[in-house]
Amino acid sequence: MDMVKVNSMDFDEFVDVFGNIVEKCPLIAAAVWSQRPFSGLEDLENHFFTFIDALPRSGQEGILRCHPDLAGRDLQQGTLTAESQREQSQAGLTSLDTNDRLRLQQLNAQYRERFGFPFVLAARLSDRATVPRELARRLHCQPESELRTALGEVKKISHLRLTDLLGAHSARVELP
Amino acid sequence: MDMVKVNSMDFDEFVDVFGNIVEKCPLIAAAVWSQRPFSGLEDLENHFFTFIDALPRSGQEGILRCHPDLAGRDLQQGTLTAESQREQSQAGLTSLDTNDRLRLQQLNAQYRERFGFPFVLAARLSDRATVPRELARRLHCQPESELRTALGEVKKISHLRLTDLLGAHSARVELP
Repeated sequence: MDMVKVNSMDFDEFVDVFGNIVEKCPLIAAAVWSQRPFSGLEDLENHFFTFIDALPRSGQEGILRCHPDLAGRDLQQGTLTAESQREQSQAGLTSLDTNDRLRLQQLNAQYRERFGFPFVLAARLSDRATVPRELARRLHCQPESELRTALGEVKKISHLRLTDLLGAHSARVELP
Repeated sequence: MDMVKVNSMDFDEFVDVFGNIVEKCPLIAAAVWSQRPFSGLEDLENHFFTFIDALPRSGQEGILRCHPDLAGRDLQQGTLTAESQREQSQAGLTSLDTNDRLRLQQLNAQYRERFGFPFVLAARLSDRATVPRELARRLHCQPESELRTALGEVKKISHLRLTDLLGAHSARVELP
């Protein structure tokens, strides 16, 4: 898909395609459509990030709360979004043995209890060995810095999802 | 459901229950959870409305763009949310004859073209005769006032959905 195509989309099509760039937050894609035309992937991505950064703290925490636990309830019940299913699968989280899964669930629960939002990590940049290690490490961070870290992971996930959609065809277009 | 129950919910449960108070915008419910405890339905509702009012214009338009057309594609394809299906059904929009349906689709298309978001109306407060009349009327409004009107309809829809969930049990609770 190239940017000429993206810039020609009506809002229905845009939200259909980009609605899950931020997990379960089609509102953000639907808002970003107002900023078209986009000169390239980086420009498009920056509009998503600017929207996230401008939200009040409750809204930023809200974004995090729309994310599923890694190897959690949605994975067990088959109710992950297609993107999240693929990402957790690539990180090896769909084939954990029972001990590793229970250990992760325990850490996830402690994290949620401490911060009021789930542990968010760009799973595709990680693997089944590093996920619990990183979770255990972040569990001890301060709430303010942890919120920033988690939103940084949301942005990494968004970047990877946008690259999947736009890939090599996202070359810059000249805007008038 | 009473407010003591609501105030005891963790964020997963809260988003499960209230995630579609604003159509396809669980982010808003997930943000509102930060403001608990709530003293009653009106307090809870005001947190939803405050969040909406604080969004930049693109975000407010984004909320509208997450709404389906009345008697539109999602209704035809059976992909409406449960709440929207019930509301459109109660307004008689699920049993329009072909002429009325095509007329509404034409008006919806004109409206989207003019404003950049779909026509949003609290369908339960309307019926199959008044919907196209109101759509034809609002088509001629100014964009600024139409955005405000449409967000007012989002709030009416939210109020009705909250009342469905909390109903007579939403009596005020004393907060510490």
